Amino acid sequence: MTLIEKSKKGITTTLVHKIAKSEGVDPAALTKNIAAGRAVLPKNKKRSFRNPCAVGQGLKTKINANIGTSEDFTRVELELRKLKIAEEFGADTVMDLSTSKNLKSVRAKILEKSTIPVGTVPIYEIVVMGAKKYGSISEIPESFFIKTIENQAKEGVDFFTIHAGVTQKTAESLKASNRTMGIVSRGGAILLEWVLKNSAENPLRKRFDEIIDIAKAFDLTLSLGDGMRPGAIVDATDKAQIDELLVLGHLQKTAFKKGVQVIIEGPGHVPLNQIKYNVELEKRVCNGAPFYVLGPLVTDIAPGYDHITSAIGGAMAASFGADFLCYVTPGEHLRLPTLEDVKEGVVASKIAAHAADIAKNVPGAIEKDINISKARYARNWEKQFKLALDPKKCKAFRKSSTPAAKDVCTMCSEYCSLKISQRCLK
Amino acid sequence: MTLIEKSKKGITTTLVHKIAKSEGVDPAALTKNIAAGRAVLPKNKKRSFRNPCAVGQGLKTKINANIGTSEDFTRVELELRKLKIAEEFGADTVMDLSTSKNLKSVRAKILEKSTIPVGTVPIYEIVVMGAKKYGSISEIPESFFIKTIENQAKEGVDFFTIHAGVTQKTAESLKASNRTMGIVSRGGAILLEWVLKNSAENPLRKRFDEIIDIAKAFDLTLSLGDGMRPGAIVDATDKAQIDELLVLGHLQKTAFKKGVQVIIEGPGHVPLNQIKYNVELEKRVCNGAPFYVLGPLVTDIAPGYDHITSAIGGAMAASFGADFLCYVTPGEHLRLPTLEDVKEGVVASKIAAHAADIAKNVPGAIEKDINISKARYARNWEKQFKLALDPKKCKAFRKSSTPAAKDVCTMCSEYCSLKISQRCLK
Repeated sequence: MTLIEKSKKGITTTLVHKIAKSEGVDPAALTKNIAAGRAVLPKNKKRSFRNPCAVGQGLKTKINANIGTSEDFTRVELELRKLKIAEEFGADTVMDLSTSKNLKSVRAKILEKSTIPVGTVPIYEIVVMGAKKYGSISEIPESFFIKTIENQAKEGVDFFTIHAGVTQKTAESLKASNRTMGIVSRGGAILLEWVLKNSAENPLRKRFDEIIDIAKAFDLTLSLGDGMRPGAIVDATDKAQIDELLVLGHLQKTAFKKGVQVIIEGPGHVPLNQIKYNVELEKRVCNGAPFYVLGPLVTDIAPGYDHITSAIGGAMAASFGADFLCYVTPGEHLRLPTLEDVKEGVVASKIAAHAADIAKNVPGAIEKDINISKARYARNWEKQFKLALDPKKCKAFRKSSTPAAKDVCTMCSEYCSLKISQRCLK
Repeated sequence: MTLIEKSKKGITTTLVHKIAKSEGVDPAALTKNIAAGRAVLPKNKKRSFRNPCAVGQGLKTKINANIGTSEDFTRVELELRKLKIAEEFGADTVMDLSTSKNLKSVRAKILEKSTIPVGTVPIYEIVVMGAKKYGSISEIPESFFIKTIENQAKEGVDFFTIHAGVTQKTAESLKASNRTMGIVSRGGAILLEWVLKNSAENPLRKRFDEIIDIAKAFDLTLSLGDGMRPGAIVDATDKAQIDELLVLGHLQKTAFKKGVQVIIEGPGHVPLNQIKYNVELEKRVCNGAPFYVLGPLVTDIAPGYDHITSAIGGAMAASFGADFLCYVTPGEHLRLPTLEDVKEGVVASKIAAHAADIAKNVPGAIEKDINISKARYARNWEKQFKLALDPKKCKAFRKSSTPAAKDVCTMCSEYCSLKISQRCLK
């Protein structure tokens, strides 16, 4: 039985029980949400790792860090260091997005070393290995798609991004949308090329039932990719995006009925005023399935700072009900993320998730703010730093700017408002 | 006549005309908004400078950078460099918050060098010079308050923060609120001490009419400070904060009637789900006066990253109608901002303001996103960088991570989604 099947029978597994306890929620409620497809627990039954998590309704907003090589940077050691940094600063999951020729050995290492769920986008291996073997993207046969996905499942991957929404029909919507930025999803672009050159249906769509069977066999989670996500503010929430979302809603229903856990991926670049209804629409047409957003970035004009543009959008999206935030690093649009980019991206995303959890009244969220505020008011610097998201940075900042009086900071010196406030109100 | 008085008569001044043109709005509409107190043009009639701006309804969201010395860092040269960085990255105004003994000479230099409106918080000079002269905060006589404010007006300061809402009554509300963080406004704390120790009314409240007269004589703008702003998420939107806001609404009405421009200052630390109604409440009870928010920070747990926590809150606040964002730097809660902190703070605040302007449909906002998106899709790197908020950072990132193929970046290398998309859709 898959986890959904067990949960539908009212069985709360040991792992669900443990996760519910650590989230501070009722295990029976979590079981019910999994049974209804509103929460998922991304874990391949062949893989065991220290820190599994659940994603969805009533739970803390989770964050994912993308790591992995590209043709220009192929060293596995660097990616493993990114993995450790992501874990240190609080990533709940990682995705290995490697596209270098050695991607199989990179994935093996990440699966071995990661203490958190590992996701992949199988179309990357399909295209990197398939294009080498068959000549070009469009020449890769359908069977190679399925075989690659099956092999990754056997290796223990916990969740897959499957771009099954890039279909012949949504490709037509895309053309009609006359976008500024076309397709910006890497997987989406690859599948668009396959579909258009072959005048045939996307194998991930056509053979979606086989993908469901693979997912079911390993109880892994399908993350239905948004190949049509907007890559420019002006392209947001257009016909192509929404047509694809409707396809994903249909596929979610199909997979869920067969006992397979499903996440829906979302945009992308979205102006502030369109975020709320994007989240509400996903929840409605995808039957309450967890929503996994990439950002969203709320402006296009700040390359180098897209961890900030996406923290703004991510905080809003999560506060309106999105469950899972994919981090965006300062390197977005410019380079493969460096170690520092990974750290900045994870911290920004963590801030967004936590801010939303306060707004959503998630158990245990505001208590963190109360505790650090008490330490701050007491000017207990060590305690404040210990409770901060990045203690090392706090310490370094303070060391860089030493006040004459040790109980204040160099911002206000003797006119510290906290000190005066305590003097007055005691 | 003050600008309000002229505007009420339907006179559009040359400066209002010029600013309206550069904002892309109708000069008559801007005049009307100034006449109604919904927009202000902070400029002391004794000071002339290159880049004045207007703040309020229908206009681009403006951002302010706080600079100035503290007792621990007194060098004017450093503050002038901060001024130049703030101007370079797009600050619309600066506030000189100096609290060192040499604050008068610092202010003189900033007033001389700044090409944008300069604001101050006169209570800082009052307390630094007054405590030296009279012994302690509470011993400073009322007359010294008024004289200091008058002198600063004569020097050409364009807008003043006046914490007239910290009254005997709101001090009682504060005590009853039983806050985690007490008062975190520096000016608010100083005035609280004065009020409580003397069991007398805040001179800024008691003699508010004299302050109006001074403001009127120099046609400068009063920014009514929120001494009771929350400094912890858990303290947000409490009785003390709202009681003070009601006082500020009353004072706005009084000053506006006499032809004096007024801005209302707002929080602070506010959870995501309280931002919208905080903005709406201010607009309602302060008669549509421009709202100037400090952040708001949406969580307390991220010292070292409060430019991000406040960009999230600022973007939301501005999208709901806040007009003016005070930047917060990564150094907040830890140190007097460094040059790098100022830059990071201004950029984060600029991102928040612009993202909100897109949502508010402010003229000229989304066009910037469209232009950079076109350059991005064309993989015209030089043009993309030129249109970015921080071209230097973009160039440095790209230089640090050189792709083998010059038309892509190292993130996706040959699997660049834009390249594939163009190939498919042309």
